[in-house]
Amino acid sequence: MSNSFGSIFRITTFGESHGVGIGVIIDGCPAGVALAADEIQQALDRRRPGQSDLTTPRKEADQVEVLSGLFGGYTTGTPISLLIRNQDQASHDYSHIEHAYRPSHADYTYDQKYGRRDYRGGGRSSARETAARVAAGAVAAALLRTVGIRAQSYVSQVGAVAVPVGYEQLDLSLIDTNLVRCPHPETADRMAALIRQTRDRHDTVGGIVTGVALGVPVGLGEPVFDKLHAELGKAMLSINAVKGFEYGSGFAGTLLFGSEHNDAFYTDEAGLVRTRTNHSGGIQGGISNGQDIYFRVAFKPVATILQPQATINDQGEEIMLAGKGRHDPCVLPRAVPIVDAMTNLVLADMLLRARANKV
Amino acid sequence: MSNSFGSIFRITTFGESHGVGIGVIIDGCPAGVALAADEIQQALDRRRPGQSDLTTPRKEADQVEVLSGLFGGYTTGTPISLLIRNQDQASHDYSHIEHAYRPSHADYTYDQKYGRRDYRGGGRSSARETAARVAAGAVAAALLRTVGIRAQSYVSQVGAVAVPVGYEQLDLSLIDTNLVRCPHPETADRMAALIRQTRDRHDTVGGIVTGVALGVPVGLGEPVFDKLHAELGKAMLSINAVKGFEYGSGFAGTLLFGSEHNDAFYTDEAGLVRTRTNHSGGIQGGISNGQDIYFRVAFKPVATILQPQATINDQGEEIMLAGKGRHDPCVLPRAVPIVDAMTNLVLADMLLRARANKV
Amino acid sequence: MSNSFGSIFRITTFGESHGVGIGVIIDGCPAGVALAADEIQQALDRRRPGQSDLTTPRKEADQVEVLSGLFGGYTTGTPISLLIRNQDQASHDYSHIEHAYRPSHADYTYDQKYGRRDYRGGGRSSARETAARVAAGAVAAALLRTVGIRAQSYVSQVGAVAVPVGYEQLDLSLIDTNLVRCPHPETADRMAALIRQTRDRHDTVGGIVTGVALGVPVGLGEPVFDKLHAELGKAMLSINAVKGFEYGSGFAGTLLFGSEHNDAFYTDEAGLVRTRTNHSGGIQGGISNGQDIYFRVAFKPVATILQPQATINDQGEEIMLAGKGRHDPCVLPRAVPIVDAMTNLVLADMLLRARANKV
Amino acid sequence: MSNSFGSIFRITTFGESHGVGIGVIIDGCPAGVALAADEIQQALDRRRPGQSDLTTPRKEADQVEVLSGLFGGYTTGTPISLLIRNQDQASHDYSHIEHAYRPSHADYTYDQKYGRRDYRGGGRSSARETAARVAAGAVAAALLRTVGIRAQSYVSQVGAVAVPVGYEQLDLSLIDTNLVRCPHPETADRMAALIRQTRDRHDTVGGIVTGVALGVPVGLGEPVFDKLHAELGKAMLSINAVKGFEYGSGFAGTLLFGSEHNDAFYTDEAGLVRTRTNHSGGIQGGISNGQDIYFRVAFKPVATILQPQATINDQGEEIMLAGKGRHDPCVLPRAVPIVDAMTNLVLADMLLRARANKV
Repeated sequence: MSNSFGSIFRITTFGESHGVGIGVIIDGCPAGVALAADEIQQALDRRRPGQSDLTTPRKEADQVEVLSGLFGGYTTGTPISLLIRNQDQASHDYSHIEHAYRPSHADYTYDQKYGRRDYRGGGRSSARETAARVAAGAVAAALLRTVGIRAQSYVSQVGAVAVPVGYEQLDLSLIDTNLVRCPHPETADRMAALIRQTRDRHDTVGGIVTGVALGVPVGLGEPVFDKLHAELGKAMLSINAVKGFEYGSGFAGTLLFGSEHNDAFYTDEAGLVRTRTNHSGGIQGGISNGQDIYFRVAFKPVATILQPQATINDQGEEIMLAGKGRHDPCVLPRAVPIVDAMTNLVLADMLLRARANKV
Repeated sequence: MSNSFGSIFRITTFGESHGVGIGVIIDGCPAGVALAADEIQQALDRRRPGQSDLTTPRKEADQVEVLSGLFGGYTTGTPISLLIRNQDQASHDYSHIEHAYRPSHADYTYDQKYGRRDYRGGGRSSARETAARVAAGAVAAALLRTVGIRAQSYVSQVGAVAVPVGYEQLDLSLIDTNLVRCPHPETADRMAALIRQTRDRHDTVGGIVTGVALGVPVGLGEPVFDKLHAELGKAMLSINAVKGFEYGSGFAGTLLFGSEHNDAFYTDEAGLVRTRTNHSGGIQGGISNGQDIYFRVAFKPVATILQPQATINDQGEEIMLAGKGRHDPCVLPRAVPIVDAMTNLVLADMLLRARANKV
Repeated sequence: MSNSFGSIFRITTFGESHGVGIGVIIDGCPAGVALAADEIQQALDRRRPGQSDLTTPRKEADQVEVLSGLFGGYTTGTPISLLIRNQDQASHDYSHIEHAYRPSHADYTYDQKYGRRDYRGGGRSSARETAARVAAGAVAAALLRTVGIRAQSYVSQVGAVAVPVGYEQLDLSLIDTNLVRCPHPETADRMAALIRQTRDRHDTVGGIVTGVALGVPVGLGEPVFDKLHAELGKAMLSINAVKGFEYGSGFAGTLLFGSEHNDAFYTDEAGLVRTRTNHSGGIQGGISNGQDIYFRVAFKPVATILQPQATINDQGEEIMLAGKGRHDPCVLPRAVPIVDAMTNLVLADMLLRARANKV
Repeated sequence: MSNSFGSIFRITTFGESHGVGIGVIIDGCPAGVALAADEIQQALDRRRPGQSDLTTPRKEADQVEVLSGLFGGYTTGTPISLLIRNQDQASHDYSHIEHAYRPSHADYTYDQKYGRRDYRGGGRSSARETAARVAAGAVAAALLRTVGIRAQSYVSQVGAVAVPVGYEQLDLSLIDTNLVRCPHPETADRMAALIRQTRDRHDTVGGIVTGVALGVPVGLGEPVFDKLHAELGKAMLSINAVKGFEYGSGFAGTLLFGSEHNDAFYTDEAGLVRTRTNHSGGIQGGISNGQDIYFRVAFKPVATILQPQATINDQGEEIMLAGKGRHDPCVLPRAVPIVDAMTNLVLADMLLRARANKV
């Protein structure tokens, strides 16, 4: 297993979906960053289940306890440890999956790799683990705030329902004004309708989150292997259910010729270097160039569906299995704070790494 | 900078495009792997410039020298160091870019981040660095051969010309039978024609490489952060000109419902666990499940075009700049061995990491 | 800060002496290791304060809570998180050191490095942090038990009172039969008397712990930098109050000639390769050679003394300061489980690293 | 194997004593450090064999070639790669040790761990590997020079012949004025005589190098695991033949009471915080406190002696074996530049790590 992420600003998460709790240690955050425990809680509230009828009806308060690293409203430079106890896990029945391999879940691979697994709700492979990331992301956001960096992601597609314009034509302050977390209100309504229809059919639907990072100074990213977009890509791909990542022009950029794709430099009226287009997505040679950073993250439809499916048990025998319990018909709205968190974690690490390499 | 990749099977590359040479140290390869220096050379020959009229006419022999780590045809467990001296760099004139920032290159960001750069041909940001990766990938391939793992990638799209079928309907032994490295001969011809047209227009064109890994056993991948597809994604995104990565169903999977997307398990006649579809791309919960692994990597059109473009110099003044010299109109054919190398490097590392975690 | 130790079997500790609690995440322990929570508690009980009149009278139960990673009496391969809440910290008065720099403590350096510190009882620099290491060490010990490795350290010197013979002439099963943890009963009595005299004079005394590891197979250790003794040395030097480390012949070995120092190999009656002497301390070329591993760790006298001392405050003004509260006159007895824990952590990591490098 | 050292300023060495050559990649050195290739050569010249009649008569020029990372007299921020080709290895006869295990060498453990070894002169376990460290150390020294840090070690003991005073009573500018590298001329003469006597008896002798680092600012060191002295200890213990490390009062400090050992703070006339004694060795809580850093490193007598010794071959049969060839009767004089190099490497890394953790 590898439960750490980041090089200097480094997090390590722990915990199973149905054990005592989940949590995270953040090691490497500098001393002196202003941070209230309340900010961490607010980030968690954006991700917690039970927020609306579009997400799982499972209710968990996800109350965070700060175990170390904060003193008098500031980080102390020591490890920050955060604990979120599980609450809503006791009474459920997981006997139907104790010996069954749910299709497109991690049951089979965990059993094969580890020889045993905590089958209650997915154990370590559950998306519940991402709550720890969101908590850590709030600490990263506090560090980034000191230099004016701000991550803002939103739902840009659910199934085939997509926002018709790019991020730069949207008012990102509208992201949290609807249940879907899509800043294009008309599309948000259509997305919500699709999610409700899907839920009612006992099915699930996927989609795309667009990530945006504003205020990133020139110079973040560590070629040749830890290019900024390579770290962002790994961060996003490490989130449950993610199947793809592209930045700037992405896959669509393969259809352009070089003469169309290149971003011409110019100097603006304020004397700042800028580019006329931004197919580069704010990153050139793996290093931020001062323009907006944007990327897209593909989420598959959730694997747990409340319909019978053919599969096998741990004896290799074919069985029929239907999901039980309370699950998200669409993870996209709750994925937004997770994408924000991972963006913040990557940028915080890169910020500190850039500082380490100045004479 | 970060010039190392991998955790246990770990490589560190060095060298500039126009300095003395480039090379790599491979640390962590077990002792006793059969490996001839010739295998490394053959891998490099697939990547070297000047192979055909579809790539740069620049000729470099890319002759590898083994400095350490091999003895009597086997690895010794000590670091394997490989050096490729530069040969074709002396006589060229780079004065036109010494003070200019080429559009969509790393010139501007390197200057800002490091305060100085070796402007001759891109220095460290040049794709020439990938020769060191290819050399290291040959060592990884030798290790993987001992357990039957084999990486095979091919060009599946150039501009808008795409192979009409999936990898599983292709004969992958045809990959190296044409200049494009596309195992669908008819499409390969159309791709070659498009590349030649683009070259003659002094432009460049991008495309997609499809990566395939066969024979991967169940159990490779280290959740929750170092999921197999997350490491593959980072590896591919660290290659010059890559803009996107998707595995299995990828971005297209966002258009399916869960009931369509899930891969049903069954037991085949030989008693092996398999899935009826493979939207998972051979990876579930970040761990290989024994099915074929496949993914797609998007390459932008090369930024260097032999046409005048508007840009700025290092004083911020607007200038016109045209590329000079001998460049690839399309990197896709030469990207195939690089994708193979990075696939091998990821899998070799994951193989050793899996071994470390057995009781 | 760097609060992680180990490469594959990797721990990360957190917590301040007077905050909510301290704890540790163990990442990289294989699945399937038999381990009862009770074993962790027993290890902590050996280290906890208030065990006898030779140590601090401060009483802390040091009750461990397992937050994750164990299921049904076995490790699951997921991160093992352990939490020890602080109990005895509330009522004390630390105002006398809020602005004072205690001599030979970390107050001054922490203030200078981090710009702020939790002055209550040393914060992160307190030896209380080692409780987390001891808890983690119990997990490492459970892993090592599966291959027959056993760490056993003891107090070999307090002040000038030293055990007159080497470890191989002692009955190590006597270690825990006296308060000092010295398996030479007569010397243990003299050590205890010295500690009591020192305590009564409001002073402190240092000493030496001898570490022994039995049953270590040939082949642990990763040259050239992570030699087994180099990792052991770092591990021991990272313990509070440690000033020196030597293994095998150590500093005394510098007085021998090569012809006296070399360990002659022979084959014993059972066909095992052995050495007639063991100046090498069981390690040759940084790799265990199958003989007993032994080393010595020097602990300075505790810096907190209940006598007035000249020092400065955080304004640079000279002041007189006397320690308050309940402190150890000698840390050696409680250092024994810490040395054991660090030995186990190094060996567990090296065991897994060795497994990773087999073809 | 683990052939990398350092976290941000990170080196990876390669090469065998009798292969093509040895070398090092330095990754993480900031751009803009003034460094002439000649400085690297000078450092190597201090370590090379054949300098005097006190060391091995083997002559090797140890000519360094800079393969990358320097441009116009400055570091570029890209990896610095250095290669030293082997020269004097061709004609020797190693057949007598191909199947023999030399006492107190790494032959046996390497064979057991790796299953094969390059038996020519020790292969990777040869002290020749330290030439790569010395070359890298020169780069670290150039970085440290920018902030006024300077490492200076010297031979303080050979066999039982010891310098009678501490480093602070010596004129360190005398270190290189004699063949032994001991700045106490009278003692140096006695050391030289002892080495010559030992050589003439076909024996070897060990000793102690005292390391000193001057000009280290407050704040270097990363508790709780990567304490400055813990990293120095690991660095020194990773050098061939080292058996022990102590800093400040070291093992002798265990004989003092706390009231004698504590270093009283005061403010000097210039307003600087200082300590009246320096038993702390310039490090408190694992962090440099601005006072001089000093430590001692114990080297065993070289294992290769030109006398017959009992040992076994790789079939376990007992044989007699005598060293052949040209070896050092005492490594201490040549160990000085190695200790300096490792000191510089640790401090350079810690300097950059400290920079990464400022808000």
